[in-house]
Amino acid sequence: MASPLKVCIVGSGNWGSAIARIIGDNARTLQHIATTVKMWVFEENINGRKLSDIINTEHENVKYLPGYKLPENVVAVPKLSDAAMGADLLVFVVPHQFIRKLCDEMVGCVSARARGITLIKGIYEGPEGLRLISDVIREKMEIDVSVLMGANIANEVAAEKFCESTIGDLSKNLSAVLVKRIHDFQSSVSCIESFTSFSKCVFLFCLLVKNIVAVSAGFCDGLQCGDNTKAAVIRLGLMEMITFAQLFSKNGVVSTSTFLESCGVADLIATCYGGRNRRAAEAFVRTGKSIEVLEKEIFNGQKLQGPATSAEVYRILQQKCLVNRFPLFTAVYQICFEKRPVQEMISCLQSHPCDM
Amino acid sequence: MASPLKVCIVGSGNWGSAIARIIGDNARTLQHIATTVKMWVFEENINGRKLSDIINTEHENVKYLPGYKLPENVVAVPKLSDAAMGADLLVFVVPHQFIRKLCDEMVGCVSARARGITLIKGIYEGPEGLRLISDVIREKMEIDVSVLMGANIANEVAAEKFCESTIGDLSKNLSAVLVKRIHDFQSSVSCIESFTSFSKCVFLFCLLVKNIVAVSAGFCDGLQCGDNTKAAVIRLGLMEMITFAQLFSKNGVVSTSTFLESCGVADLIATCYGGRNRRAAEAFVRTGKSIEVLEKEIFNGQKLQGPATSAEVYRILQQKCLVNRFPLFTAVYQICFEKRPVQEMISCLQSHPCDM
Repeated sequence: MASPLKVCIVGSGNWGSAIARIIGDNARTLQHIATTVKMWVFEENINGRKLSDIINTEHENVKYLPGYKLPENVVAVPKLSDAAMGADLLVFVVPHQFIRKLCDEMVGCVSARARGITLIKGIYEGPEGLRLISDVIREKMEIDVSVLMGANIANEVAAEKFCESTIGDLSKNLSAVLVKRIHDFQSSVSCIESFTSFSKCVFLFCLLVKNIVAVSAGFCDGLQCGDNTKAAVIRLGLMEMITFAQLFSKNGVVSTSTFLESCGVADLIATCYGGRNRRAAEAFVRTGKSIEVLEKEIFNGQKLQGPATSAEVYRILQQKCLVNRFPLFTAVYQICFEKRPVQEMISCLQSHPCDM
Repeated sequence: MASPLKVCIVGSGNWGSAIARIIGDNARTLQHIATTVKMWVFEENINGRKLSDIINTEHENVKYLPGYKLPENVVAVPKLSDAAMGADLLVFVVPHQFIRKLCDEMVGCVSARARGITLIKGIYEGPEGLRLISDVIREKMEIDVSVLMGANIANEVAAEKFCESTIGDLSKNLSAVLVKRIHDFQSSVSCIESFTSFSKCVFLFCLLVKNIVAVSAGFCDGLQCGDNTKAAVIRLGLMEMITFAQLFSKNGVVSTSTFLESCGVADLIATCYGGRNRRAAEAFVRTGKSIEVLEKEIFNGQKLQGPATSAEVYRILQQKCLVNRFPLFTAVYQICFEKRPVQEMISCLQSHPCDM
């Protein structure tokens, strides 16, 4: 009989800690999964104590997911190579800009049968253009990598509210482990309940781009635009997401029905009404503070994906002379970083190219 | 030179009064439109005064759109045949259950070149099955009928906030009048700004069904489900809308991209976050009062489309043995009218047939 599969969670931020609660519970109940789940923690000093020590004694990530206990079998490990040593199942949940460096550190540590799944909502831009995070991990570590996405806001997942997810490119080996585990979980406490799968990896482009739309939705809230305007902005953002996916997909074909999955429209709606990017953008309008200051003041220094992604995307659009086709993406970047008046968020959407 | 086109607004509720503000302003500025716009008012007694008298002296519909002035060239007319006499452009904006009777009263009154546009968000169920409101009007009155739909909540349109609309089946004659008028309007004050057109009339089925989804979204709010759950419910509602449209379309083909227009996903989002059906459903959960009581207490007796439509749709689904494919639509009906516990709104969505 094969030894139980060892799980390593690479990351311990807000979303990483929320998913650790599910994974820890599952690992305790599933026979073919090792009970101990290692969670790599980027070490920080919290009022004179190490964050990893706090997690391992109090079983709570007091910085990134305060108020929710982690299962005791989730063990915080501050050194990444120790956390990943011998791991069979790797769950990547770190800010996307760190992924290459972290993969380098893990090469050679993981098990020969290792499989990965990424929960990272971001994209890598290298010299060769845009790359999916799953592709970067796959290439660096030479392992299969799946993707889990959907309308999952970390704090609500932690609170065990009903939500859906989409798993893309699920490899056969991984599905035996992962889907089984989630289904077991489903039958006890509701948290991630419903799954659909999609095969178009290119769609993941949108999973970061949606954070730009969430920033625009937050601007609407800050400007007190009302429900119609906000819905119009979200829809035009969705149209730009689709256009973006179609332009940057390898074969140029992206089915619009993919955008009707949980990872598409539901994720977008949840993010535009409840996510952190929305909240920061609303505060940006109301307080006049910079994104950088708000990241420090509201989010304990955690980097917001929306503004950073708008800058990445804007650079790409400029290179390809496509700025005019993306007035919403462009406005978000210029408002965040170039002092464009936030009121122009609305006026720039009149006569939108998607409606021509 | 042809005489200016006479406009008659058939209806003066919340949405009718909001659109009367736009039409009245346009009629004043466009040469080929007669300045006086007649608005049929179902006469009511308001504290001893006739509603039509109040509108014609104070230029405000104090019952259905209090706080917003109507242009003085919008004239309230209590007798329908008088209001419609000689009208060239008819704008239908009444509760859908009254449309047949009202059309009967108007036959023979309108101009020979008359064209209509319906803003009614409903559907007619007769002995021959489901009928679009536009088809009912077209058949009864033997005139061309277009459709305007979108994320337009009456009070926000009245407040001149940015929003989008979709016009379907725009006849050539009407577009010269209507789109021009709206474009003129657009250049002065923003209100309805962006238009796309669609040709699949069957899609209008969804424009009533969305109100059922809005009720389910309101239940989520009443239950304090959180953003993920609400987004999942809205998405599953959208999937049921698409399935419903596909089952009941004449040729069985409904493009999912139609659902990405303003009249699809944007209208749904706006209605699920800001509409009256949502608000009533939230109050239903929090207060335990019946829909009928809430209609009286919160909405001055105006009938809510969502619960009534859920009953119509449920009857149709039962006849066709399709109840199992629409767990959300079914739950809304049973919660509103058959005392099903509202908590089952969430549990009934687990293992939804759209995700099988």
